[in-house]
Amino acid sequence: MITLSSDFGSPYPAAMKGVILQLSDARLVDVSHEFPRQDVRTSAFWLREVLPYFPPAVHLVVVDPGVGTDRNAIVVDTGDHQLVGPDNGVLLPVSRRLARMAGGNEDDLAIYEIPVDDPESATFHGRDVFAPAAAAVHETGLVDLDYPIVDGFVELAFPEPDTDGEDVRGEVIVVDGFGNAITNIPGGVLEAHWNEELSVNGEGAPVRRTYAAVEPDERLVTVGSHGNVELAVNQGRGDESFGVQVGSAVELRSPTERNG
Amino acid sequence: MITLSSDFGSPYPAAMKGVILQLSDARLVDVSHEFPRQDVRTSAFWLREVLPYFPPAVHLVVVDPGVGTDRNAIVVDTGDHQLVGPDNGVLLPVSRRLARMAGGNEDDLAIYEIPVDDPESATFHGRDVFAPAAAAVHETGLVDLDYPIVDGFVELAFPEPDTDGEDVRGEVIVVDGFGNAITNIPGGVLEAHWNEELSVNGEGAPVRRTYAAVEPDERLVTVGSHGNVELAVNQGRGDESFGVQVGSAVELRSPTERNG
Amino acid sequence: MITLSSDFGSPYPAAMKGVILQLSDARLVDVSHEFPRQDVRTSAFWLREVLPYFPPAVHLVVVDPGVGTDRNAIVVDTGDHQLVGPDNGVLLPVSRRLARMAGGNEDDLAIYEIPVDDPESATFHGRDVFAPAAAAVHETGLVDLDYPIVDGFVELAFPEPDTDGEDVRGEVIVVDGFGNAITNIPGGVLEAHWNEELSVNGEGAPVRRTYAAVEPDERLVTVGSHGNVELAVNQGRGDESFGVQVGSAVELRSPTERNG
Repeated sequence: MITLSSDFGSPYPAAMKGVILQLSDARLVDVSHEFPRQDVRTSAFWLREVLPYFPPAVHLVVVDPGVGTDRNAIVVDTGDHQLVGPDNGVLLPVSRRLARMAGGNEDDLAIYEIPVDDPESATFHGRDVFAPAAAAVHETGLVDLDYPIVDGFVELAFPEPDTDGEDVRGEVIVVDGFGNAITNIPGGVLEAHWNEELSVNGEGAPVRRTYAAVEPDERLVTVGSHGNVELAVNQGRGDESFGVQVGSAVELRSPTERNG
Repeated sequence: MITLSSDFGSPYPAAMKGVILQLSDARLVDVSHEFPRQDVRTSAFWLREVLPYFPPAVHLVVVDPGVGTDRNAIVVDTGDHQLVGPDNGVLLPVSRRLARMAGGNEDDLAIYEIPVDDPESATFHGRDVFAPAAAAVHETGLVDLDYPIVDGFVELAFPEPDTDGEDVRGEVIVVDGFGNAITNIPGGVLEAHWNEELSVNGEGAPVRRTYAAVEPDERLVTVGSHGNVELAVNQGRGDESFGVQVGSAVELRSPTERNG
Repeated sequence: MITLSSDFGSPYPAAMKGVILQLSDARLVDVSHEFPRQDVRTSAFWLREVLPYFPPAVHLVVVDPGVGTDRNAIVVDTGDHQLVGPDNGVLLPVSRRLARMAGGNEDDLAIYEIPVDDPESATFHGRDVFAPAAAAVHETGLVDLDYPIVDGFVELAFPEPDTDGEDVRGEVIVVDGFGNAITNIPGGVLEAHWNEELSVNGEGAPVRRTYAAVEPDERLVTVGSHGNVELAVNQGRGDESFGVQVGSAVELRSPTERNG
C-alpha cells in the first residue's frame, strides 16, 4: 500500500499516480492533496494525526517549498512504515509517533537519502523523484535499495505545553478547515472539568464533550479527534470567536483559581 | 466493496480509510466528502441519486450534526446493500429506493443499532464508530454480528408533489453545485411539452431536453439526470434566475391553461 | 485500468464509478474532476500533460459543453491507450502524444463512434453513455465491439510557437491553479539563458530553474513540469504579475538583442 499526500490540488497528483502505477501494483490511497500550499507545519500536524490509523505502508508526502534547491529527498523508516518526501521536517512528527507506536524509541529513526541525479533540474520532484522512490521502496525494499544514511536532517517539532502548574499554558498549533483552533494541550487536562466552565485567555467558556452540547454559534472548549484541547464553535469558527490563530498563546484557568 | 460519503472535506476521510484498511481488504470508493456541512437533507438527496448505480456494497455515510449526543448509530439492510451511519434520516431515502429496486417493499427495511460503548465520549464517530462498523458489516456480515433491531428511527422523506390537477405543484428539494434547482416533480410531466413553453411560477420558460438547447445564460425547464424537473440556466445558475431556493414552491402551468 | 476525468466536481463522478463497477473489476484512478467547467481547451492541455505518465489504460473523459446536442461520442485508439469521450477535441492533443510515444504517427489515430440510441435524450451522458462505453472498451475490447469508424471529428490543436528567429514568439495556452502562465514555447529555448535575465514582452525577468531561486513574490521565467516555458511568481500568481491570460502573446528576447 502506498498513500499519497500533497499540497498539489488537482490534477498534478494524477501524474504521480501514473508514474507509480507504471512501477508497482500497490494499492494507492489518497490522504489529502489539499494541504495548505507550502505549509510544512500544518501538513506535518495532519500527517501525524492521520497516518497512524493506517496499516503498514509506504507514505509519499510532497509538501515542498524548497523544490529545486539542494534540499535532500529522504526516506524515513519507522519499522512498520516508510515515509518518502523532502527533507524539510514534514515527515518527522508522524515518523516519531509511528516509531513509538511500533514499540521503538521515537528518536531512533533510520533516515536515508534518495539519490537524485540533478536536484536543481526539475520543477516537479513529486512526479520525477518522489513517486519513483515511493514505488522503489514499496517494490524493492529499503534493504536492497541500499540508499545512504543521511548526514543530518531538518528537524520539526511542535511546541510542548506547560501543564505542571494550576494554570495550563499552550498554544494553537493548527486551525482546521472548520475553524477549530487545535492546541498542543493534551485533552486529559479537561477531565476534571467536563460540563463546567473554564477561563480561556481570561474569558469563560463551557467545557463540553461535543459541539452539539452547546447551541449553534456558541463556543466551547473540547477535545478533538486528535486528542488535544480544541477551541471551537458549534457550527461556526472557533478561531474567530476566540480571537486566535496558529501560534497564539492559550491559557486555561479553572474558576476556582480565578476566585481563589 | 465499501463506499464512503461524508461532509468532512479533507483530510479527515483518510483516517476512516486507514481504520477500514486495518480491518478489511475491501475495495474503497469515495462517493463524496464534499456534502454541504451538516446538511442531512441535501446529503440524503444525493445519496438517493448516486448509490443506486453501485453494485451491492456496504455504504458508510457520515453527515452527523448530532455527533456526541445520544443519537443512535445504525445499519440499514436493504437486502443487496447495507448502509452504515447516524440515525438522523440521512440513510432513509436511498435505503427505500434500494429496497424497491431489489424487488422489496420500501417500508420493509431492517434497521439495526450499532453498539457504542460511550456514545457521548468521542468527537470523531466517523473514525471511531462508523468506520469500524462498516468494516465489520463487510467482513463479518450482519447475521453474525447479531446487532439488535432498533426500537425506532428518525424519518426523512422528501415532500410529494401534486401532479393530479392541470397545474403541477411541487417544490425545490435541492440546488446542486451548478445552481440547478432540482424539484420533486417527476420529469414525466414535461413529456407533452418538449420544445414548448411552460409558465413557471407565473413566468414563461422554454422546456428543453438539454442545457445546450438554449443560448448561454438563457433559462430552461428540463429533466436532470435524477429524473426530476429542474430549473436551469445554460452555463449559469437556475436558482438565481428563477428566484428559488430549497423549499421554494414551484408551479408549472401550460400556456393553454393560461389562456383558457 | 480505467482513469476518470471530468469537470463534474462532486458527487456526480461517483455515479459513473458505480456504473463502471457494475460492469467491470477494472482498477479505477481519478485524474481530476476539477477541470474548469466546460473548458475543453484547458482540459485537453492537462490531459496531454498527465495521461502519458500512465501505463496502458482506458481513459474516460467527460468535459462536454455540447451534451444533449448531436455531437458524437467517440473512442480514440492510440495503440496502447483508448480514450472515451465527447467529439469536441478534448481527446485529440493527448491522443496524438500517446500515439507518438508508442512509436506511431500522431496523425494516424483510429477514431470510432460509440452508438448512442437517442443522443438528445439524456442530460448525464457521463453516467449513461460514456461510463458504460469505457467499461465495454475495457472488458470487451475495441475489436470485438465493432464500433464504426467516424466519418470526421472535431479537431483541437494548440498553437505552434515561432522559435526560428532570435526573438521567440508564442502565447499563453493555459493558466494553472497556482497562477502559473504556461506558454506553448518549448523549455529548450531557455537553455542558453539560465541565471540570466530575459525580456518578456518588453520587461526584464530572471530565468531560473525553480521558483525558490527567487524571493517570495518575485517573478521568474522557468520551465514547468510540462516542459514548456512558464511565467511564474514564487509563492504568487504569474498571470497577474506578467499581465497575461490564456491567448496572450509572449515574446522572449535576450538582453544582447535588446542592446544590439
